[in-house]
Amino acid sequence: MATVPALLVVSAHAGDFVWRAAGAVAAATARGERAVVVCLSYGERGESAKAWREGKGLEEIKAMRRDEAERAAAELGAEIRFLDAGDYPLIGSRDILDQLVRIYREVNPTVVLTHPLADPYNEDHPEAARLALQARVLAQAIGYDAPGEPLGAPPVFFFEPHQPEQCDFKPNVLLDITDAFPAKRRAMECLGAQQHMWDYYTDLAVRRGVQVKRNAGPNLGFPTNTKGEAYMRYYPQVTDVLQ
Amino acid sequence: MATVPALLVVSAHAGDFVWRAAGAVAAATARGERAVVVCLSYGERGESAKAWREGKGLEEIKAMRRDEAERAAAELGAEIRFLDAGDYPLIGSRDILDQLVRIYREVNPTVVLTHPLADPYNEDHPEAARLALQARVLAQAIGYDAPGEPLGAPPVFFFEPHQPEQCDFKPNVLLDITDAFPAKRRAMECLGAQQHMWDYYTDLAVRRGVQVKRNAGPNLGFPTNTKGEAYMRYYPQVTDVLQ
Amino acid sequence: MATVPALLVVSAHAGDFVWRAAGAVAAATARGERAVVVCLSYGERGESAKAWREGKGLEEIKAMRRDEAERAAAELGAEIRFLDAGDYPLIGSRDILDQLVRIYREVNPTVVLTHPLADPYNEDHPEAARLALQARVLAQAIGYDAPGEPLGAPPVFFFEPHQPEQCDFKPNVLLDITDAFPAKRRAMECLGAQQHMWDYYTDLAVRRGVQVKRNAGPNLGFPTNTKGEAYMRYYPQVTDVLQ
Amino acid sequence: MATVPALLVVSAHAGDFVWRAAGAVAAATARGERAVVVCLSYGERGESAKAWREGKGLEEIKAMRRDEAERAAAELGAEIRFLDAGDYPLIGSRDILDQLVRIYREVNPTVVLTHPLADPYNEDHPEAARLALQARVLAQAIGYDAPGEPLGAPPVFFFEPHQPEQCDFKPNVLLDITDAFPAKRRAMECLGAQQHMWDYYTDLAVRRGVQVKRNAGPNLGFPTNTKGEAYMRYYPQVTDVLQ
Amino acid sequence: MATVPALLVVSAHAGDFVWRAAGAVAAATARGERAVVVCLSYGERGESAKAWREGKGLEEIKAMRRDEAERAAAELGAEIRFLDAGDYPLIGSRDILDQLVRIYREVNPTVVLTHPLADPYNEDHPEAARLALQARVLAQAIGYDAPGEPLGAPPVFFFEPHQPEQCDFKPNVLLDITDAFPAKRRAMECLGAQQHMWDYYTDLAVRRGVQVKRNAGPNLGFPTNTKGEAYMRYYPQVTDVLQ
Amino acid sequence: MATVPALLVVSAHAGDFVWRAAGAVAAATARGERAVVVCLSYGERGESAKAWREGKGLEEIKAMRRDEAERAAAELGAEIRFLDAGDYPLIGSRDILDQLVRIYREVNPTVVLTHPLADPYNEDHPEAARLALQARVLAQAIGYDAPGEPLGAPPVFFFEPHQPEQCDFKPNVLLDITDAFPAKRRAMECLGAQQHMWDYYTDLAVRRGVQVKRNAGPNLGFPTNTKGEAYMRYYPQVTDVLQ
Repeated sequence: MATVPALLVVSAHAGDFVWRAAGAVAAATARGERAVVVCLSYGERGESAKAWREGKGLEEIKAMRRDEAERAAAELGAEIRFLDAGDYPLIGSRDILDQLVRIYREVNPTVVLTHPLADPYNEDHPEAARLALQARVLAQAIGYDAPGEPLGAPPVFFFEPHQPEQCDFKPNVLLDITDAFPAKRRAMECLGAQQHMWDYYTDLAVRRGVQVKRNAGPNLGFPTNTKGEAYMRYYPQVTDVLQ
Repeated sequence: MATVPALLVVSAHAGDFVWRAAGAVAAATARGERAVVVCLSYGERGESAKAWREGKGLEEIKAMRRDEAERAAAELGAEIRFLDAGDYPLIGSRDILDQLVRIYREVNPTVVLTHPLADPYNEDHPEAARLALQARVLAQAIGYDAPGEPLGAPPVFFFEPHQPEQCDFKPNVLLDITDAFPAKRRAMECLGAQQHMWDYYTDLAVRRGVQVKRNAGPNLGFPTNTKGEAYMRYYPQVTDVLQ
Repeated sequence: MATVPALLVVSAHAGDFVWRAAGAVAAATARGERAVVVCLSYGERGESAKAWREGKGLEEIKAMRRDEAERAAAELGAEIRFLDAGDYPLIGSRDILDQLVRIYREVNPTVVLTHPLADPYNEDHPEAARLALQARVLAQAIGYDAPGEPLGAPPVFFFEPHQPEQCDFKPNVLLDITDAFPAKRRAMECLGAQQHMWDYYTDLAVRRGVQVKRNAGPNLGFPTNTKGEAYMRYYPQVTDVLQ
Repeated sequence: MATVPALLVVSAHAGDFVWRAAGAVAAATARGERAVVVCLSYGERGESAKAWREGKGLEEIKAMRRDEAERAAAELGAEIRFLDAGDYPLIGSRDILDQLVRIYREVNPTVVLTHPLADPYNEDHPEAARLALQARVLAQAIGYDAPGEPLGAPPVFFFEPHQPEQCDFKPNVLLDITDAFPAKRRAMECLGAQQHMWDYYTDLAVRRGVQVKRNAGPNLGFPTNTKGEAYMRYYPQVTDVLQ
Repeated sequence: MATVPALLVVSAHAGDFVWRAAGAVAAATARGERAVVVCLSYGERGESAKAWREGKGLEEIKAMRRDEAERAAAELGAEIRFLDAGDYPLIGSRDILDQLVRIYREVNPTVVLTHPLADPYNEDHPEAARLALQARVLAQAIGYDAPGEPLGAPPVFFFEPHQPEQCDFKPNVLLDITDAFPAKRRAMECLGAQQHMWDYYTDLAVRRGVQVKRNAGPNLGFPTNTKGEAYMRYYPQVTDVLQ
Repeated sequence: MATVPALLVVSAHAGDFVWRAAGAVAAATARGERAVVVCLSYGERGESAKAWREGKGLEEIKAMRRDEAERAAAELGAEIRFLDAGDYPLIGSRDILDQLVRIYREVNPTVVLTHPLADPYNEDHPEAARLALQARVLAQAIGYDAPGEPLGAPPVFFFEPHQPEQCDFKPNVLLDITDAFPAKRRAMECLGAQQHMWDYYTDLAVRRGVQVKRNAGPNLGFPTNTKGEAYMRYYPQVTDVLQ
């Protein structure tokens, strides 16, 4: 694995990767790694209430969401792609699945981030996760007809949903994003349509930061302002050191 | 954490740490780390059937088991202690709990290994795990009256029980023990009373090694004879890199 | 919410709402509330064995089931609609989903009842539940293109399946239907094709009634003949009093 | 049930009832109901790190914690009792269990609050819950030898632990504590030893308030500053209206 | 195993084996097998409300319960033993555990029945189950100091609790007790203190009988009046035929 | 049920039935029963890596896999059918479902074997299981339009996936396949493309054989070389004897 590590984020709507995973993305690019965000939809119907109330049209809203997401990705140093598969409902087709397989083959990610597999508040999220997981397995098969080499077995992490307990989201990885947080905040501030979430997700970063400190041990020199993001590792961790 | 890392293993019976965690122990000591094994009992009643059938007495069996375990620990480069709390049933007392707290304070482990919390075939195993976990929390409290500094928050890993699925043991860490395996095999061969298990646990190491390779990705240069041990991480992993 | 409360029941087959939720329906209409039952299919293939054995044809059976269900709904004071999506298997389409969204927008339910999400004996039931849940979320989005105002967040309750334990149905709400039971019995008696179920579900009402009394406390004046229905609340209850 | 409702809170340590349930307590007393808090211990060893670091002695710390808790209870309008059973570890004895039964018989609570049944970070919490639950059942038996009438079947709610997901805490009740929050804040400010938690639990109240609004539906007139507390109902809710 | 099969039932209170397992017991003795019931307590405090309300004393109640249980066992053709360990709460001691081990060694059961491991309504039931399970494992150890040969590995079945779903009781064995039911009814009628349960458990037998028929397949010639009992097998079934 | 028992195996790919269930198949045919294997696909894309690396074409690979599977089935005395639904991904259509229903009606199986419902490594496996389960229920309905009599309720067993714990595979049936194992080995050796698995699944048979012995009891005369296969029973077992 002499190649540069690459992070692939599969997001149902244009904004999800910012609220839930921008810390991990910014930390990766700060280490010189590649990060690619795939937005299956723009969240044009389900996550743009303000724009609809203002009377905007569908294409206008999609363009606006695309613009916001592109600026947020830029703040994080990440590439971004839009598959425009539609939302509310997002329904995976063979074609969307195939596009995802081709992205896996091209990007050859060393880490994959996506939504968890349950969300009673938004079926688009688990649908995105199922697509991301299935495309990963298909991309591993030499017999799958798509350009590039068969994929290895990159680990998959589910990022945090809006109401974690209701989604059976039990974090088994707490990521220290203290250094990456300023970039995350800037990326959040690109999402003008959801301004009420900026502070909400800043508070969440503080909360997860407290858990970072608590689970690492109190005497390890974490600063007072430690920030965190929570993840669920889906496959077993492979390692040669228990730590 | 400028001090040398230290691995603490809490084992219900004298042999458990060998079958289930000797790879992790040998790997730690090979890295120059300290490893301390605590056997709550000798397994004198429940895991010494052959000796009982040969008509040996209780004290004789305890001495024999102790000798075997000491030799196995020596093969692994580990220290070993015996609390002689009795087995079948192992029942935790305040005194045993207090002894464990004092060991935590003294050893100041950076990693803890113990049994999983369920085992329908042997209640001694979860009892040992409960004691190990509770002592760890008590040792963290400055108000707990025992010598030494309050403990940090060392991660805890459950090692693999004999019938993993029946114990709800779903591994989330696969440890590559290829290099450590010869020492593990030598340690197993110290346990003459359970010779039928030498090959059984060698086969298991192969099986877990196949999973190491499969979960790491097929192209990462793992050798054919990769060996593994399976663990369940109990608390969330704290990290600054998702990988 | 000055409007009259409205109960929406989404049922896979024509008879389900009677056996499983007629008490809740009758209690709602007795309080002057509106109740609307949506039958996704007539249960023409899977729940009309007697008619098939008598040699009846498909359309005849559908008409017969429709008639029974209409009479049962009338006994309960409920409106009823049939989407005729087919059963055995019931397979949700975008069109059926859209029809459901429109019904949500029109009825604006304050409470929703449907099947639980697992049933190893009848996949139509969870399919109906998934459709009911997904349509509810879609109807909440202002961007979803359907007449009417966006839906609020009405609570959802799963009604009891035929073999509750096998469907992982663990009731967290026990509804006292003592006063409503005579109407439920009359509604059941409209379903001539399944006469063997009348007493079965009367016995179940007694059984759940015993649990009503037991969980409420023995001294609260419940009558001997208390009847109950069991439900699983899917989203957290919002309240300003714990009771 | 013509008597005044009474809320009983069973808390492992002196501060738990404040961080986790003070909103429910203040809301109850504001409605003119009785509230009784039972602290099984003062949290003298495990939750008083600051005092130990300042070199205070055991009795001094217990007195200090008692004073804080009494003042907090006073802010909430609640009675408070201390069983002084010891902490770290809290170990239930027959005597403590019996004292709890007698309190149940005397207070005759209509609602019970306690810790959830799992907490990998603090075994005292589930021990307190087990005691609270077992005493409740014992108090129901006419044959249990203690003064007073047999208890009814008051509902039990688990309040929120510090790291909810790790404790398998999946809230099924979200309590609106907006009006009660000022009293909760005042009660928190009585706990000088844990000042860093004041804002932490204020933020949590905001977070749970967002969920109150989201689960109730967005158009129901909840104010911007809605505050919440999360609970898990342990026994099925008994009701005559689904809502 | 040329010896006669033997069924061992471990019951928390004097009546439990009747309501929950009398069908299995009667079926076993009808096949000429031995059946031994062990009552850990008489249920004198927790399950004798009527007698307490009539002002009877503790010893009188114990004698009455014993008499009832002995007559019920006689109807079933079973032996019965009473360990008089006390109830409400039933608390296992080393001595009780040892008595159970000795019974296992003496009876050498081929099948074991006991309570399930969870019951939010009665902690005595899981305590009895834990004792039954632990004693079974201890009795297997040749090193355990008790007369007789080490036990084999008899399968364990949990019988049905009063509120099965709340006890996470998901039956995986449905026992046809049609022929044994008259004896079960006679045994129930020996329990005069709990007359209201006779019909309740007859109705339950009908309900489980419906499930027997449904899970076996409708065309297998089960009679209309098929009766059933539900069980949870705790260890994997060992067999040489899948059926 | 005077007819000969029939075993139906529904397998996602051509090889699955061999690694996972060949022991059960060989045991059935050795008893004179009928066994029918349905391969939904040939595993041409996902499980034929060696052939793809050798540059073979799609049709060539399908023919090769078909030939291997036919020879393996012949070794087991089983019939085999191929639905050629495609793999990686296998996606169930109404047509495939209907073909399966017709096979159920024709074969009238007394036992059904298929994959478990979860497999994070291969979504084709749970898809096959869902199809097998749904077709079984459809075939039970007299109203389903397909030739033959309505199906009864044959028990369903899930066979063991490659990484059992990760698939939430908790065996509740351990099948003794000692006598059938030589045929299983011969069948495995027909699958030349996956030679590395021959020993892997032989070792697994030994491992499950150890569990057969352990769960049956040590003194029951099982030979040293006992072999086993692990299964999960999906519906409750119906029986008239607990054993």
